[in-house]
Amino acid sequence: MKKINFAIVGATGAVGRKVLEILNEQKDFLPIEDIKLLASDKSAGTKLYFNSKELTVERADSESFNDVDIAIFCAGSDVSIKLAPEAVKKGTIVIDNSSAFRMQKEVPLIIPEVNPDEIKKHKGIIANPNCSTIQMVVALKPIYDLAGIKRIIASTFQSVSGTGIEAVEELKNQSAQIISGQEVECKVYPYQIAFNVLPHIDEFDEMGNTKEELKLINETKKILNDWDINITATAVRVPVIIGHSESVYIETVEKTTVAEVREALSKAPGVIIYDKPSQKQYPLPIDVAGKNEVFVGRIREDISVENGLNLWIVADNLRKGAAYNALQISKYIVENNLV
Amino acid sequence: MKKINFAIVGATGAVGRKVLEILNEQKDFLPIEDIKLLASDKSAGTKLYFNSKELTVERADSESFNDVDIAIFCAGSDVSIKLAPEAVKKGTIVIDNSSAFRMQKEVPLIIPEVNPDEIKKHKGIIANPNCSTIQMVVALKPIYDLAGIKRIIASTFQSVSGTGIEAVEELKNQSAQIISGQEVECKVYPYQIAFNVLPHIDEFDEMGNTKEELKLINETKKILNDWDINITATAVRVPVIIGHSESVYIETVEKTTVAEVREALSKAPGVIIYDKPSQKQYPLPIDVAGKNEVFVGRIREDISVENGLNLWIVADNLRKGAAYNALQISKYIVENNLV
Repeated sequence: MKKINFAIVGATGAVGRKVLEILNEQKDFLPIEDIKLLASDKSAGTKLYFNSKELTVERADSESFNDVDIAIFCAGSDVSIKLAPEAVKKGTIVIDNSSAFRMQKEVPLIIPEVNPDEIKKHKGIIANPNCSTIQMVVALKPIYDLAGIKRIIASTFQSVSGTGIEAVEELKNQSAQIISGQEVECKVYPYQIAFNVLPHIDEFDEMGNTKEELKLINETKKILNDWDINITATAVRVPVIIGHSESVYIETVEKTTVAEVREALSKAPGVIIYDKPSQKQYPLPIDVAGKNEVFVGRIREDISVENGLNLWIVADNLRKGAAYNALQISKYIVENNLV
Repeated sequence: MKKINFAIVGATGAVGRKVLEILNEQKDFLPIEDIKLLASDKSAGTKLYFNSKELTVERADSESFNDVDIAIFCAGSDVSIKLAPEAVKKGTIVIDNSSAFRMQKEVPLIIPEVNPDEIKKHKGIIANPNCSTIQMVVALKPIYDLAGIKRIIASTFQSVSGTGIEAVEELKNQSAQIISGQEVECKVYPYQIAFNVLPHIDEFDEMGNTKEELKLINETKKILNDWDINITATAVRVPVIIGHSESVYIETVEKTTVAEVREALSKAPGVIIYDKPSQKQYPLPIDVAGKNEVFVGRIREDISVENGLNLWIVADNLRKGAAYNALQISKYIVENNLV
C-alpha cells in the first residue's frame, strides 16, 4: 500500500486535534509518510505531537498542498471555500468537514459504512457529513435496507464540543460561575448554555428551521440517495461536553419487528446495540465519548401506529461525527488505490 | 367567597415549597383562613413561612385533615395512596400531585385551562397531571380546538427539579466535582446527570417504554377525552435545574397554517408565544423558571407532509407543571362554591 503525505487543515481546532489523537492511538490506521499540520495565522506556531514527534503547525495557504495526497479540512466553511479548490489544483484529495460543498451534486457525501462506493466518483473534494447526520444514518441504514424508511422525525441533544473548543470552555466557565453565584458570561452562544438547553444551532431560515435541521434532512436524503423520505427535525444544544444524542422516530415502508431491527443492527458495521432497559442499559453521551462507533438503544415499537419505531442514537460527535469518519474515508482511498 | 382551611401534604418537598412560595407571592390567590403544613416524620418540625408568619410543619396522618377543606398532596404516590382516602373521609377535597389516582375513571384529571368542568365531577380526589403532560396539553389544546390533532410525537428535555430537591443538589455537586477534577458521586440518578443526558425517567415497562412516557401518552388522551390520538414519546432527563422543554411534532386532522396556530395560541389562556427566531427569541428553561405560563416557540410547518407542525414548549415544571396547576384547581373549587 502506498504511503501517503497527509495534511490536517485546522489542526488546532477540536476536530483537527481529534484527527491527530486518533492517528496517535491507532498507529497503523493510515500508512503515513509525512504529515503536515495547518491552521490560521493565529494558530500557526502551535506545537502538536504525532508519533511522539513534536510538529509545528504551519500557516495554511495555497502553497501548503504541494505533494499532499490527502488533506482533511476541519477549519470551517470559509477556509474550505478558499483553500479546498487550491488544494485540488495541486492534486490533493480534499476530505472536507465543513458544510460548504456537501450538497453540491458532483461532491460525494460519504459515510463509509453506508455509501463507500460513491468515494470513487469524487472530483477532488469528498464531503464529510454533519455530525448529527452521520450518527443517525449509520444507525438507520440497516433498517432502511431491511424494511425501507418513509418517515423520520428527529430531536437532537447536541454537545457543545460540536461548536468548538471555546464552547467547551464557556460551558465549564458558566457552570462554575453559576455554582459559585457569579454573573454568567456569554461569548460563544447567544444565551447561557450551562444548566440550560438552546433550540438553536446554526442560523434560522425564513420558515423557522435552522440550518442544522436542514443539514440533517437534506444530507440524509443525499446519502441514502432517496429524496422521498419525509424528514423533519428539531436540533437542540444541551450542556454536554462530548457526545450527541438523538431521539429518532421512524416509519418503515414494510412491517418489521424490534427483533428484526436488532438483528439487522447487530450485524451492521460501526453500530453497537446498547439496549437492556431493565438493566438500566442505554447509550449515554458520557459513555460514548472517546468511542468511534454509533450506539443505539431504547429500540421500541410505537404501537399506536403501523410501522412506527423509536430509537435513541448516541455517538462521539468529534470522532464518528467528524474526525473518525474523515479518517475512514482516507483509509478507503488508500486501500482502494485511489491516491 | 368562603374562606378555606388549606393543607399542603409534603410541604418541605420541591413542589410543596413552591405551593407556599406562590401563595406568598400572590396573597389574594386563595381566600385562606388557615393553612396546615404536613410532611413525613423526618421533616416534621421544619419551620416555613406563610404571610410572614412562621409555621411548624406537622407530621401527616389520618387525623391531620379534621376541618381541612382542600389539601394539595405532593409527597409521592405512597403517601397519597395511604392518606388521600383518609382525608376524603374527613370531607377534605384532595388535589393529588402523584400519579396514584390519575388514570382512575372516577378521578378527574384536570388542567384548568383545558377541562375545568370536569372538576365538578370529583368524588373527593382530583388528580393533577404529570408536569410534562400539563405543559404539552396547555399548548396543544388551542390547536386541538382549531384543527383537531391525530398524531403527537414528543421528545422531552426534563429538568432535575422534577425529581426533587436532592436531585438539584446532585446536579450542582456533580458539576462542581467534574469542574474540579474530582470523582463524581451518584445517589439520586443511576448515572451522572451533570454534563450528560439520561433517556430514563421513572421505570421501564416490558415494551421498553418508561412510565414517564406512558403518563404523557395516557394522561393526554384522558384530559382531551380523545382516545384516538396516536401518541409516542421519549422522555429524557437533562442537566437543567428548573424548566422542562419539549420538542413536539403534531399532525392535525384539518389543514391549518402557522398563522392560524399563532392566532389560536395568542388567545389561549395560560399560553405565551415566544417565537421570533430571527431575533433569537425562543423559550428557554432558564427564562421560564419562576413563571406560571406555558411558553411556545419554534412553531413551524413540516412541509414534508400534510398537516405536520413542530413546536417547542417550555414551562416551569414546579409551577405550571405542579404547584400552580394544583392551586388553579383549588381556586376553581372555591370560586365555584364547590367547598
